[in-house]
Amino acid sequence: MDVVKERLAQFSLEAHDLYLSQSVPYVDGPPDPLQFYRDWIGPNRPCIVRNAFNHWPALSGWTPTYLREKVGSKVISVAVTPDGYADAVKDDRFVTPEERRMSFSSVLDIIQGKVKKRGGGGVFYVQKQCSNLPDELPELTADVDAHVDWMSTALVHKDPYENLYCVISGQKDFILLPPTDRPFIPYGLYQPAVYRQKDDGDFEVVDQRDREKVPWIPVDPLDPDLERYPAYRRARPLRCSVRAGEMLYLPSLWFHHVRQSHGCIAVNFWYDMDFDIKYNYFTLVDDLTAFTGQH
Amino acid sequence: MDVVKERLAQFSLEAHDLYLSQSVPYVDGPPDPLQFYRDWIGPNRPCIVRNAFNHWPALSGWTPTYLREKVGSKVISVAVTPDGYADAVKDDRFVTPEERRMSFSSVLDIIQGKVKKRGGGGVFYVQKQCSNLPDELPELTADVDAHVDWMSTALVHKDPYENLYCVISGQKDFILLPPTDRPFIPYGLYQPAVYRQKDDGDFEVVDQRDREKVPWIPVDPLDPDLERYPAYRRARPLRCSVRAGEMLYLPSLWFHHVRQSHGCIAVNFWYDMDFDIKYNYFTLVDDLTAFTGQH
Repeated sequence: MDVVKERLAQFSLEAHDLYLSQSVPYVDGPPDPLQFYRDWIGPNRPCIVRNAFNHWPALSGWTPTYLREKVGSKVISVAVTPDGYADAVKDDRFVTPEERRMSFSSVLDIIQGKVKKRGGGGVFYVQKQCSNLPDELPELTADVDAHVDWMSTALVHKDPYENLYCVISGQKDFILLPPTDRPFIPYGLYQPAVYRQKDDGDFEVVDQRDREKVPWIPVDPLDPDLERYPAYRRARPLRCSVRAGEMLYLPSLWFHHVRQSHGCIAVNFWYDMDFDIKYNYFTLVDDLTAFTGQH
Repeated sequence: MDVVKERLAQFSLEAHDLYLSQSVPYVDGPPDPLQFYRDWIGPNRPCIVRNAFNHWPALSGWTPTYLREKVGSKVISVAVTPDGYADAVKDDRFVTPEERRMSFSSVLDIIQGKVKKRGGGGVFYVQKQCSNLPDELPELTADVDAHVDWMSTALVHKDPYENLYCVISGQKDFILLPPTDRPFIPYGLYQPAVYRQKDDGDFEVVDQRDREKVPWIPVDPLDPDLERYPAYRRARPLRCSVRAGEMLYLPSLWFHHVRQSHGCIAVNFWYDMDFDIKYNYFTLVDDLTAFTGQH
């Protein structure tokens, strides 16, 4: 088995030598669909596209004042965590945020520091994907394009699960790991749990006993426990910051960790997953890594 | 190791279930470059394109009479074998054809049965790829397009090694095996040798002692020795016939075996190889198969 394990490690390093770059490259302006497919989607490489949505009214228009006026009274779901870590492994549990229903303006009050949070703690995060924006906040849809022209042309509806993160304001910091780094990335099965803020403001973790265990990555890429997961030392994360007006192309099957600046607003476009040769190969590497054990 | 071996086999079967078809699909007419990239090149799937080079004068024009007139006096290289098996493993040697220099009209005399072959035996094959057609037979280049529009647009010069086989007359019969079938395909290292026709017409096999051993597939897909290579039973070859006026897209890294009808003429366009994620994954599977042994 050692020879398989070592070959998996070598495979991962080869990927970096062959076709991955040290940092996430920039593309200036909306690309031609074929060019985008050929250079990024096909090879499964991330990039940051600049000047691709300068024409969206959202880019300069989504100020707190405007959002309060347009959708302030709408009740939306907010994800609340004690520390901003949503969907992460903590104390051997896979912990998801407390979901809270609030008016948009109440959330803005908190984010802008106009009111004290209940109990004083917690990090608030509103998550809407492009597919539910038209349904839940139709008042805002005129401010962004309904789809990204060149991406829709490139992908139609039959390609791998691909993501475009468009940052409207603030900044998102990504740590990306290619699927070929899988041999160095630890996985485990974790008891699902959810945060619940108590009346005193502290958060407790409540197990969801009726839910199946969840496979998740226990390593924190911001502060990896290399004693416990020594193989992760060989992983080669790509870091990038996506600023207002920039759009990250996050290819299918890449591992990603995201942080955002306070009050960051972003719109995410995603496309359904297809099960192609890259998926086929990835599942092999995934299972072989599990067989040989990487930590 | 057995678990790795079995997982490799499962991987290969999954490829067929997920995205490979039972036969090679047809595409009618020259496709849009993006569509071709998205549907065939990206997913690494073969297809046969019909009605894509109807406008080539070669299609109806390359008759023996025309070829004699245009290039009959040219001296070209001909590959000669006793049985038509070129570049194949025979008696544990990797045997290449005898290369003979002859005028084009002498080759046509033989193919048309107008003269007896020296010694009476041998199969004659003239091989020219698109890149040397302009150099060696410039008289014929006006009869075919210099490149295939939509393929050149799709690939530029930076993509994997991809092939387009355009059959001008006669028929080519292909047996194709996807790269994901690698776990079932035996490989060995063979002493290179070359055919040489003796004065009595018989062919002898002469070892090329100064050449390194060549890795090659010893199995004959037309008559596989399943006693010796039992794993090949699980391979799932695709068979297709490419007829005059049809063009086979043979994706990079696919294994292929080709036969042609007597007097078949074809033009082959190929593009340089890039080393992308599919190549990266393939080399892993290749080595893991070698480690675990498949026969």
